Parts: sequence; structure tokens; C-alpha cells
Amino acid sequence: MTLTVKELAQRCNAKVLVGNESLKIVSAADIMSAAENQVTVLSSKKYTKFLKETKASACFISSQFSTDDAPNDLVLLLCDDPEISFLQAVNVLHPTPKLTKSISKQAAIAENVSLGNDIHLGAFSSIEEYSSIGDGTEIFASVSIGRHVTIGKNCRLYPNVVIYDNTQIGNNVTIHSGTIIAADGFGYKYRNNEHVKVPHVGNVKIADNVEIGANSCIDRGALGASIIGAGTKIDNLVQLGHNINVGRNVIICGQVGISGSCTLGDGVVLAGGSALADHVTIGRQTVVMARTGVASDVEACQTVFGSPAKDKKVAWRELAALSKLPELFKRFKNLQNRLKKIEDK
Amino acid sequence: MTLTVKELAQRCNAKVLVGNESLKIVSAADIMSAAENQVTVLSSKKYTKFLKETKASACFISSQFSTDDAPNDLVLLLCDDPEISFLQAVNVLHPTPKLTKSISKQAAIAENVSLGNDIHLGAFSSIEEYSSIGDGTEIFASVSIGRHVTIGKNCRLYPNVVIYDNTQIGNNVTIHSGTIIAADGFGYKYRNNEHVKVPHVGNVKIADNVEIGANSCIDRGALGASIIGAGTKIDNLVQLGHNINVGRNVIICGQVGISGSCTLGDGVVLAGGSALADHVTIGRQTVVMARTGVASDVEACQTVFGSPAKDKKVAWRELAALSKLPELFKRFKNLQNRLKKIEDK
Amino acid sequence: MTLTVKELAQRCNAKVLVGNESLKIVSAADIMSAAENQVTVLSSKKYTKFLKETKASACFISSQFSTDDAPNDLVLLLCDDPEISFLQAVNVLHPTPKLTKSISKQAAIAENVSLGNDIHLGAFSSIEEYSSIGDGTEIFASVSIGRHVTIGKNCRLYPNVVIYDNTQIGNNVTIHSGTIIAADGFGYKYRNNEHVKVPHVGNVKIADNVEIGANSCIDRGALGASIIGAGTKIDNLVQLGHNINVGRNVIICGQVGISGSCTLGDGVVLAGGSALADHVTIGRQTVVMARTGVASDVEACQTVFGSPAKDKKVAWRELAALSKLPELFKRFKNLQNRLKKIEDK
Repeated sequence: MTLTVKELAQRCNAKVLVGNESLKIVSAADIMSAAENQVTVLSSKKYTKFLKETKASACFISSQFSTDDAPNDLVLLLCDDPEISFLQAVNVLHPTPKLTKSISKQAAIAENVSLGNDIHLGAFSSIEEYSSIGDGTEIFASVSIGRHVTIGKNCRLYPNVVIYDNTQIGNNVTIHSGTIIAADGFGYKYRNNEHVKVPHVGNVKIADNVEIGANSCIDRGALGASIIGAGTKIDNLVQLGHNINVGRNVIICGQVGISGSCTLGDGVVLAGGSALADHVTIGRQTVVMARTGVASDVEACQTVFGSPAKDKKVAWRELAALSKLPELFKRFKNLQNRLKKIEDK
Repeated sequence: MTLTVKELAQRCNAKVLVGNESLKIVSAADIMSAAENQVTVLSSKKYTKFLKETKASACFISSQFSTDDAPNDLVLLLCDDPEISFLQAVNVLHPTPKLTKSISKQAAIAENVSLGNDIHLGAFSSIEEYSSIGDGTEIFASVSIGRHVTIGKNCRLYPNVVIYDNTQIGNNVTIHSGTIIAADGFGYKYRNNEHVKVPHVGNVKIADNVEIGANSCIDRGALGASIIGAGTKIDNLVQLGHNINVGRNVIICGQVGISGSCTLGDGVVLAGGSALADHVTIGRQTVVMARTGVASDVEACQTVFGSPAKDKKVAWRELAALSKLPELFKRFKNLQNRLKKIEDK
Repeated sequence: MTLTVKELAQRCNAKVLVGNESLKIVSAADIMSAAENQVTVLSSKKYTKFLKETKASACFISSQFSTDDAPNDLVLLLCDDPEISFLQAVNVLHPTPKLTKSISKQAAIAENVSLGNDIHLGAFSSIEEYSSIGDGTEIFASVSIGRHVTIGKNCRLYPNVVIYDNTQIGNNVTIHSGTIIAADGFGYKYRNNEHVKVPHVGNVKIADNVEIGANSCIDRGALGASIIGAGTKIDNLVQLGHNINVGRNVIICGQVGISGSCTLGDGVVLAGGSALADHVTIGRQTVVMARTGVASDVEACQTVFGSPAKDKKVAWRELAALSKLPELFKRFKNLQNRLKKIEDK
């Protein structure tokens, strides 16, 4: 889509600070790679050095940045929140082509399924008995939905998502391809030389406005539910165990593993590759840094690092000490020799 | 399903120790959340404190726990193995609704495929030439089975499982959604500026009573087979490399990675996120703790931790010492100064 | 397939050094398990001890190995590069049965899709509008291909691969089952108590001769492309973030995680379970060892280990020192006591 900078500014909560208001903008790009007729953004001090050399035609900027270095022909778009204005510009300039919604004749819909209005159901998707799909929800190709599943309004399930029986999904939930919701949790009791399976008769409940990446897994509860709170965002290849209780607006990055029965407070952040042992509780807004292994509860508003997880500063102090440890051995030997000399006098 | 406590006790190897035998039980729950008409279990000393306040109507308990604190109206169900009795109760009270077995008209079955009796084949599942499916096996929607695959009796393949050519699967094997059996292993030889692929002409053999979680991968052998022994249980998002030889009753938890040509003895436990370098052998019943990285062989009946893996006690002693290391540097400096003073006399 | 050793030698760049040229070879096996009528290889000094006891009928060998210990009836096949000759023999002796190519009537092909010649399209695969598939490409069952996708010649997509809109794939690319190409990257801006999604309007571009394992994910760019260079090989359960730029002939092993906007030079090797923080650049031919966590740029031709990543030798020196640390505490105490004694004199 092509807009003038003036039109773009209006649609993105910005105003033209300086420059030609009728200049055409066709797309968005970052400040280093942007070219003519592209809009970019200056959102961090780290990037101010690129401002004077940018080839972009327009740039979102807030009043906190100096514009002295800006090229003369760069249109500056003043706004309160350049990141959000730019994000709006991307949405305006690069609209997703509308899906022509339809119920594919090559889908398999069992009896007693309830379909809302304005639904899309792709080829080779299947919905088993007693499930219901809310208005406006889009289900792509080869999605498999079990029995007694409830999916809310305006959800999107990308190809090859699998939803096991009894799952409950709220409104505006997006699930990317290959993600498996509500497979059995991993639990066995060892008796008489065999692992006896713990039955998993619970389910998974996903609240509104959740997004889940590709090839992740959320296991169903053994008894009761595994719960994902509203607004929580989950990345790819994440493993969420049975009976977990994840709060609202939690961020769970790629390849995180959460064992069974963990509880995460609102606003918790689990960085990439971190993991929690079973029955761990993480207080609200705590940040678990990348690749950290948490074996016991962590209070609210902490930042923890390492395996086992410690306060970030403590963990870093230990790592810093470790890096000087080989030298300490040499210094120790020197001290030992000097002491020996004194003793031998 | 609703049962009296007496009926429930009979079906779960328990007897009514005290309380009203005709009380109705409708479902099962853990001791903290159980409510009226629910049965629960006291299976660990950790939970004895919850006994006096439980709202459950009945509780499985063994003779090793004191019942003095039990509420007066709680029916106590005495049994030798409360965990197993409770697990039986869950199965009795929460039966999985029976699948109406059928061969979907929307499945694709190639020529020369052999189907046993009492099979379920879901919509959009495909079976290629020369494969055979044993009696009673259930194949859900969108499962893809290659050529010359043998699947035994009473197996269950959940939606979107993929089985490559020549795989052999025993009886009573369960595979959850998104799991890929027998994709090529990862092997290349670097020659003349390109990675030449090592052909993978082997296969995967899975013995009886194996369960595999969701979105896991078991690679086929380069030559010969990758083998999973009877009774072994594998969790989600696990990577099992080519030509591995996994023993019987092995437990492999979520996000474990096993490189090519590893051997695991019977009863080995690999906890969550642990990993093995290639050609490693782990002796029977050894436990590899969470997030441990094993680079060389480990003998039987050990418990190892850390990266690189060490005996658990050794690894913990090192971690304990590391946590005191910043303090050691200070004490070292003090010692140095005192020695200097003596030397300067 | 059965060949005489003479025929086999001719097809594998080898010559019969000693032994019966008309002996029949039916299959290939490693030197420890090979039996009569099998060909094997001696490719490493580690395996010379197995030469004298091998039951194989023939063995590829280079002039650098002594053949004094070889059994009398073993045919020795002399060649410059035994690994490659053996690999050729495996391909010759174990040919993959030819696929009968066809466009399944149970596939779903949208309008304005361009299909080349000699294509295979399996049952329940779907191709959305404006996509094109090159000559000779094989698409197995239940593959889902979005809109405006370009796939080159002689590619192979195994069952249940998903390709999102606008992806560009070169020639001779192989993608194993369950892998998801071009799902949205993971990016949000936190405003007013909600995570606002960063739109992902970029795509993924995969060059020629790339192979990708099972259940991996390559996220699309937010703006611009995520790029995989020619000849690069990627294992199973790998997470590749948005806007990454991966060079040529890179090796990415199982369960690796690469965060957004990372750059990998040509020939980089990321061993199993290693991970990169966002915006990290790794110079060409650098090796990141297993389970290493890289938080900042690494120059070319390095070998790094640990979390955070360090030069391999530095990291190992630290680990060696750590293993002696508990002992150092004891020795330190001893020194302290001796010093005290001197001070008290």
C-alpha cells in the first residue's frame, strides 16, 4: 500500500515535524537498510549513529532524540512512542492479504459440532464430536480438533495444529503450526518391572489473547487443568508440563521447558532455553534469564541466572571469580612457598 | 461414573477402614483440591498435613500413615499401595469415552496394505504400500505411514504422527501427536566445499509397551536399526539420534537429546533437558539428572549431574565450593597481607 | 542389489587390492557388525583393531592403513577416500525404492498454482494460491504450502511439513517431517498491560542444497527475510529466529536455538544444544561446542565452549580448576593455621 507521509502520520499517531508532507511511502524497513520511499524508526540510542546516513524517506522519532544530524531530505515524524507508531505503520503498509473464508469440502466435520458465523475451515482439517468453534475463527489446513473442544471467537489455528479432547480455548487466540495442545502428561509409577501409566483425565484451558508459536506442546492435566492465563505469549518448541498454572501476560521464549505442576505469576519472563523443575512457583514479574535452570521457588520481581538459579548478581560474581580461579591456584602456590621459607628459617 | 465407596474399594484393591460404605464417589482429585463426593489419596509424608483439612469424601491410605488427624466424615480406604489404588480409581471414575472404530472414507490406503481386525483409521490418514496394521490399533486423523511399515496390535497413533518407511513397531505402543519416527539421521562428510550426505538406509524398531510423547523425533539408523526397548517411556520434544540402542523400561524426559550411536541400559532415567554426546554408553539404572551433559560413558547404578557430567556428590561439592569462591578471594588477600607483614619484619 | 566386488569397486572409485574379485556383495555394514557378503570400511585408526576379526567379505581401505592383520579371505578395496567410497557403496547396494510420481486426487490445489513437470504430490497435501513448484519436486502426504510460495526443482518435502506464505525455497532442498517454515517470529512491545504483537511481514529464503531435519522451525523476518545459505544442513528440533542470516555450508545440530537477527558466517558449526542470544554474529568456520551459550559476537575460526561461551582452552582450564576447588579450600585452611602459628610466636 502507498501513502503520503502525511496520511501515514495521521494513521500512526504522529505528526510531520519537518519535510515534504506529500512524499510517497510504500513500505517499512529498519534504519540501516531502509531506502527511498520507505519509512523507518529511531527507537533506541544505540541506533542514533545511523540517523545521519539513513536512505529512508521518513523516520518516526520522539522528542527525546536530537534531529541535528538528520539528512535534509528525511521527513521526521514526531510521536510519543516511535516503536508503536512504526509497528502501526508496518501494519498499514503491509496488510495481510484477506483470506477468503470458507468451509472446505475436503474437511471432516463430525456430528454434533457447532460452527459459528464467518468461520474458515481449511482442507483436510477435522473436528470431532461435540466441539464448537466461535465466530470469525480461522482454522487452516490439516488441523485436527478432538471431541468436546471449545474454541472461542476470532482465533487462528495455523496448519497442522492438534487439539486433543476437552480443551477449552478463549477468544483471539493464535496457535502456530505443529503445536500440540493437551497430549497426555508424562507420569508413571514403577511397579513389578513396569512403568504403570498415570491416567491423564484433566484438560488444558487457554484464556483470551494468548499466542503460541510453532511445534510447542502443552500437556493436559492429570486431574484438573493445565492453565494458560490471558495475554500470555509462548514461542516455538516450548514444553509445558501437566497441571501448570501460567499467569497473565507471561512471556515464554523458545525451547523453554516447564515441568509438571509449576505456577508462574503474572508478567513472568522465561528467557530462551530456561527450564523449571516440577512444582516450582515463580513470583510475578520475575525474569528467569536464558538457559537458567530453576529447581526451587523464586519470589516476585527477581532476576535469576544459572543452574541452579541464583540472583543474577550473585551468579555473575561467581562466574567472574571462576574466571580468575586458575590464576588463584598459581598465587596460592607462591604464597605456600613463601610461608615454607619462613617456617624453615 | 458414580460408585459407592464400597464398590470403588473393591475395584481398587482397597477396603473400607472406617466410614459410610454407601457414600457416593463421582470423581478423583488431589488431597488439596478434593471436594465432596471426590476420592483422594495420601501417598507421601509431605501431604500428611493436608489430611485433617481435606474436603474429600474418601481417601486411599496405607497402614504406614496415622489416621488420627483424619476428619470424622472422611471414609478411609486402606490399601497396600495407595498410589496404584488411586490410579485405578481415576481410571474407573473417569473412563475415556469409547472411540467408535471405523476406517474413514477420507483416508488414503495404498495397495498391498494389510489391515487387522477392529482397527480405527481417522480422516486424512495415509498408509503407503506394503505396510501392515495389527488388530485393535487406532490411528487418528492426519497420520502418515510410509512403505513397508509394520505396526503391531492395540497401538494408538494420535493425530499428525509420521512414520517413515520400514519402521517396525510392536504391540501396545502409543505415540502422541507430531512425533516423527525414522527421519534420516544427521550425518555428512565434508568434501570439496560441500557436505556429502551419509545415506540412511537403516530403520527404527520400537518394542512392545513403549509410549512416546508429542513432537519428539527418533532418527532411523544409517545402517542397521535405531532400537527402543520394551516398556520404555519417552516424553515430548525429545531428540533420539541414529543407531541408538535404548534398553527396556528406560525413562526419557522432556527435551532430552541423545546423539547418534548411544547405548542406554535397562531402567536408565534421563531427566529433563539432559543430553548425551555420540557413542556414549550409560549403564543400567543410572540416573542422569536434569540438564546434565554426558560426554563419556557412565557405569551402571550411578547418579550424575552437571556439564560435563560427574558423580552427583562431586558435582554438588564443586558447586558449593564455587558459591564460596568470591569470599575465598577476599580471605586470600588477607592472608597475603599478613604474610607480607611477617616477611617485612 | 547384489554386485561382485569388482563391480562394486568400479562404481566406488576403488580397486581390488587383494582377494577374489567375483565374490558377491549384497549389503553394507560397519566393521564390527559386518557379516559374510557384506562390504565394510576402515576409515579411522580407532577401528584398526577390528580389522583382523571382521566377518565382512570386503573392506574399503586407504594406503595409510596397514593390511598385515587383515583376514586372508577379506577382499581389500583400495581407494583414496574410504569414507566416500563406502558411502557410494551404501547408495549402490541399498537404493531407495523409486517413488511412483503422481498428483494425488486427494490433494488440494488452489487456483493460480504453477506445477512443474515430473512432480509428486501426496494425498492430503494442500497448495494455496499463487505458489509454484519446480520440476521433479516430491511433496509427500499432508504437506501444507501457503500462498505465494516458490519451491525450486528436485526438492523433497516429507509428510506434515508446513510452509507459510511468501517463502522462497531453492533447488535440491530436502525438508523432513513436521518442520515449520516461516511462522511468525516472537516479538512484542509491552504497553498498557498488554503485549502488542510486532507484525511479521517478512519471509524466509532458503538457498540450494539445504537439508532440514524433523520438527525444526525457521521463523519469518519481521521486515525482510530470514536467510539460509546454500549447502547448509540443519538437524531436528532446531529453533531459528526471525531475521537470521545463516551462511553457506553451515552445520546446525539438534536442539540448537538461534535468537533473532543473528548472523553466521560460512562453514560455522553449532554443535548439539548450543544457543545464541539475539543479534550475535559468529565468524566463518567457528565451532560452537555442544550446549554452549553464546551471548556476544565470536570471531572467525574459533572454538568456543561454556555458558557464557569462551575460548575452548580457557573454558576447560576453568573447569579443571573448579574440580580442584574443594581441595583448595582445605589447603587454604592449612595455610591459614600455619600462618597463625607463626604470627602467635
